[in-house]
Amino acid sequence: MIMLNDLKENVCQANVELRRQDLVLYSWGNVSGIDRSKGIVAIKPSGVAYDELTAEKIVLFDLDGNVLEGDLNPSSDTPTHLELYRTFESIGGICHTHSKYATMWAQACKDLPCLGKTHANNFYGCVPVTAVMTQEQIEADYELNTGKVIVERFKDMDPSQMSAVLVANHGPFTWGKDVDKAVENAVVLEEVSSMAVGTLQINPQQQGISQTLLDKHYLRKHGENSYYGQK
Amino acid sequence: MIMLNDLKENVCQANVELRRQDLVLYSWGNVSGIDRSKGIVAIKPSGVAYDELTAEKIVLFDLDGNVLEGDLNPSSDTPTHLELYRTFESIGGICHTHSKYATMWAQACKDLPCLGKTHANNFYGCVPVTAVMTQEQIEADYELNTGKVIVERFKDMDPSQMSAVLVANHGPFTWGKDVDKAVENAVVLEEVSSMAVGTLQINPQQQGISQTLLDKHYLRKHGENSYYGQK
Amino acid sequence: MIMLNDLKENVCQANVELRRQDLVLYSWGNVSGIDRSKGIVAIKPSGVAYDELTAEKIVLFDLDGNVLEGDLNPSSDTPTHLELYRTFESIGGICHTHSKYATMWAQACKDLPCLGKTHANNFYGCVPVTAVMTQEQIEADYELNTGKVIVERFKDMDPSQMSAVLVANHGPFTWGKDVDKAVENAVVLEEVSSMAVGTLQINPQQQGISQTLLDKHYLRKHGENSYYGQK
Amino acid sequence: MIMLNDLKENVCQANVELRRQDLVLYSWGNVSGIDRSKGIVAIKPSGVAYDELTAEKIVLFDLDGNVLEGDLNPSSDTPTHLELYRTFESIGGICHTHSKYATMWAQACKDLPCLGKTHANNFYGCVPVTAVMTQEQIEADYELNTGKVIVERFKDMDPSQMSAVLVANHGPFTWGKDVDKAVENAVVLEEVSSMAVGTLQINPQQQGISQTLLDKHYLRKHGENSYYGQK
Repeated sequence: MIMLNDLKENVCQANVELRRQDLVLYSWGNVSGIDRSKGIVAIKPSGVAYDELTAEKIVLFDLDGNVLEGDLNPSSDTPTHLELYRTFESIGGICHTHSKYATMWAQACKDLPCLGKTHANNFYGCVPVTAVMTQEQIEADYELNTGKVIVERFKDMDPSQMSAVLVANHGPFTWGKDVDKAVENAVVLEEVSSMAVGTLQINPQQQGISQTLLDKHYLRKHGENSYYGQK
Repeated sequence: MIMLNDLKENVCQANVELRRQDLVLYSWGNVSGIDRSKGIVAIKPSGVAYDELTAEKIVLFDLDGNVLEGDLNPSSDTPTHLELYRTFESIGGICHTHSKYATMWAQACKDLPCLGKTHANNFYGCVPVTAVMTQEQIEADYELNTGKVIVERFKDMDPSQMSAVLVANHGPFTWGKDVDKAVENAVVLEEVSSMAVGTLQINPQQQGISQTLLDKHYLRKHGENSYYGQK
Repeated sequence: MIMLNDLKENVCQANVELRRQDLVLYSWGNVSGIDRSKGIVAIKPSGVAYDELTAEKIVLFDLDGNVLEGDLNPSSDTPTHLELYRTFESIGGICHTHSKYATMWAQACKDLPCLGKTHANNFYGCVPVTAVMTQEQIEADYELNTGKVIVERFKDMDPSQMSAVLVANHGPFTWGKDVDKAVENAVVLEEVSSMAVGTLQINPQQQGISQTLLDKHYLRKHGENSYYGQK
Repeated sequence: MIMLNDLKENVCQANVELRRQDLVLYSWGNVSGIDRSKGIVAIKPSGVAYDELTAEKIVLFDLDGNVLEGDLNPSSDTPTHLELYRTFESIGGICHTHSKYATMWAQACKDLPCLGKTHANNFYGCVPVTAVMTQEQIEADYELNTGKVIVERFKDMDPSQMSAVLVANHGPFTWGKDVDKAVENAVVLEEVSSMAVGTLQINPQQQGISQTLLDKHYLRKHGENSYYGQK
């Protein structure tokens, strides 16, 4: 028996937090976490309502996709999560939702521009949208290929500085050093997605902020010399 | 005495759920259910507030519109419900609301395009808007004719694959295998209706998703080989 | 001592309902009611928070504006209310808010078009916006003149069929046979105001509904042969 | 030991009110207050969640930026607050948020026009947006320079008549005679910011209201002859 009760409990709570933060309807959306030392991923079961979710129902996998523990079917998005864990080695948690405003940008197939400090505090530049998937990518191994188009989009980007992506025609994935940070990034992404819609409604010519301002805000919170919060 | 207490209780609870899901103001909106083996329809009484609704107040009909049980006037939309039950033989529940975003699309007299996976998971393509009713259709048997314009719109569509319609200048009707599914479809329709408004605001040129992606998502949840949720 | 405790209690509760329906911030907004047999108007005191409001704090007036009972200053909008009661003899309650979407239409100085059944069920046609007030109307007796521009706008309209107005650059007033109906009309006006913004975003060419459909819906609920609700 | 327990308690409560009014996510946003007789400023610590905030955690400063009391790091925006207190001698409290609609206007780098009475009751004209900060202003003493660009924007304006500013690419600051008024102005600014977006969507040609109407509304509530509320 594998246990990892702390990881399962954290993943369970992070999934419930999606509901509390109003990011999901019904059972849409899922959070996973990884124990890097053991190479084990914990993920929400498919189609289970958040108020019926318990740590015992969380499903455990290895990175090759073998189920290690759990009686329920895992989230159908599991192959996407595993591809991201295999490729983005710095991340500890992944969150997927269909939150309203982030999904609008994903459906519009547009990068989410960085229009101000709220965005720059959390995401280092435009949040990228993936390529639209080809017929071949859709028809075979769709969920695995969803992971692959994300990875392809990040070939020149650092996932530890850009912790979100918009999958074209679909919705957002976010990640972080742990499951809580992955969910926080989903909350912030939703907020800046809605602000960006309104900003461009007020001023359709508005461009993203300068590199100087972006560096200032992102590094103030995340860089070596960060001076936000309590140390 | 007819009883059907389970059906009446389900219909009552489904009506109350409309309020919980924030789809209705005051007594706007109504849900009905049918017992196909007996050919009996149960529907909300007209103008009764959701917090005063009990199973005993639900009105029972046969498919010809004869009241079988109930002291209160039924929803004024009853003839629309009956026409749909008579024609769409696979459905077990119907829901009608004036939910905000779905009503916007109905008032705009525009089909709701399928712009992403959230929509495609639940509705197999554009959610259709009916024709605008003629003066004759409005003046005599308005509610029955509302049913007829819906049926006309579906002459080349399968109501088991498209469980929603937008009545022009009016609002949405949704249905499903039972009353709970009819209400769930109303919730999802409202969500994708609001996402579509924002998607087209961000990218006015955006088209509906490809047939391949639509097939993938809809059939993943609904087809013979569906692999979402627990079996 | 005048009493009219029932009227004061109703007016108090209707004001509190504004808050519950999310139509007001702070102490913005006010509801009044009239006892036509005595010619006495009851109105909210000015600048009092809704959760501190009690029936005892409601101020009583005659139609000439003489205070009959009450220690607190009445709503600064009182002269507007009195002008409407003097001129619109069929109404029993008046409600004024700065509710978000209705205020947008008032600020835009545009009539709110009747774009569907939700609107037509409650308001018989476009909800009119008043003329922009002149410098003279603003500088002397501003609140009384607010009432006068409303009355002027209604010179060819029946206030019992159109129970709402948008004061240009300001916000909505609604009324009804009693205070509860006045508040209900404020709730409905806010809802149809937001629906109209979205409808025209989806389809900027959309026109108001036909006279036939308007007659059908309005008269279904309000005419002699109405058949909505329980008799 | 300095004490000022009342000020610390007021500042603490005002910060918590930001959350209750739905103006902030996580620990975004901060409120400060000043005791003018002692020249001491009290401000929220950086990155502390609102539900963990107590009066004891509030940090005290003098106007030169020397910490007088408090174990936690102060809000990283402290130099902005201090610059405003030094220059705007009439103000007693300052509030900073990233509230959604006010932030949209700040990100759009547009003055918020005065489109109606709701705005005019609280802000005497357009709410100004600052200049976009230069590379030099951003790279050294960013937060102090944020204060300086606000002060520069107000060189011909009276901060006691215009109690809000939009910092370009960032978000709003509001102030008032005390901390409660600073927060109230943040709430009102958010409301009129959202109303302005919708007003201009309905009528893109709409201009700000006349000087006569602006004077009437602002002075009705704030001038020598004000007649709103209870004296």
